[in-house]
Amino acid sequence: MNLLAEFIRGIAEYEKLADEVVADEAILRESFFGSRPSAEALIAEWEGEPVAFAVFFKNFSTFKGRSGLYLEDLYVKPEYRKKGIGKAILTHLAGVAVERECPRFEWVALDWNRNAIDFYEKLGAKQLTEWRIFRLNGDNLAKLAGLSY
Amino acid sequence: MNLLAEFIRGIAEYEKLADEVVADEAILRESFFGSRPSAEALIAEWEGEPVAFAVFFKNFSTFKGRSGLYLEDLYVKPEYRKKGIGKAILTHLAGVAVERECPRFEWVALDWNRNAIDFYEKLGAKQLTEWRIFRLNGDNLAKLAGLSY
Repeated sequence: MNLLAEFIRGIAEYEKLADEVVADEAILRESFFGSRPSAEALIAEWEGEPVAFAVFFKNFSTFKGRSGLYLEDLYVKPEYRKKGIGKAILTHLAGVAVERECPRFEWVALDWNRNAIDFYEKLGAKQLTEWRIFRLNGDNLAKLAGLSY
Repeated sequence: MNLLAEFIRGIAEYEKLADEVVADEAILRESFFGSRPSAEALIAEWEGEPVAFAVFFKNFSTFKGRSGLYLEDLYVKPEYRKKGIGKAILTHLAGVAVERECPRFEWVALDWNRNAIDFYEKLGAKQLTEWRIFRLNGDNLAKLAGLSY
């Protein structure tokens, strides 16, 4: 759990979003190891050292009537990049998707992150160029729910 | 189950994606009512008639360490639009999100669907303009998994 919390802080600092992290070890323990886990995590090692992590969960396709695999986070420590660790993790997760009969393996990337996009496309992923994500949270979510008019 | 299958065919025809639907009633029964359901569905009625449906599931935010609510599909039969049914469903689901302590309620829309986008923004949702979705499926997924080199 220490390790997961440390990786999450790492990715948040890299994305300059450290302020948004509220997950502490108790929260993570419940989410990953509680009675109804919400997500799974994978830790990759390099010469015995944990250097990368991925968090993933099942989403659902109405048309397929089946769960797909959704990669929420993928992070390789900066000093261990360009060694094929990211590709190894995506390859492994593609195998997990196939094994679990998930027809789709999906994730998101920032539209200006050309390196990431090139890398994903080289692995065979297609960008769903027309789709945009919408989010309701905080006060706007409470307001729509009718809690703070 | 008949009803769910019928709504899914309806939305697929509307999106001109009927060919992509593989979910039959047996698949849907397992996905929604099996021992480990993958998603939940909500049916809205108008004067006793089922006229709209939504499919949603839990996603997961690493930073929050918590599950969010993800709306996979929202469909109102064409002849019952402009009656506030879509808004009623989103309001209800915002309430479900708050009740379940989900910090986020998310979904996607097509970037050219100005009516939908205006509607979502009026309800307080923010478009995550920089994020793009990537998808691996079919042969590309099998190939990365190492099954068909």
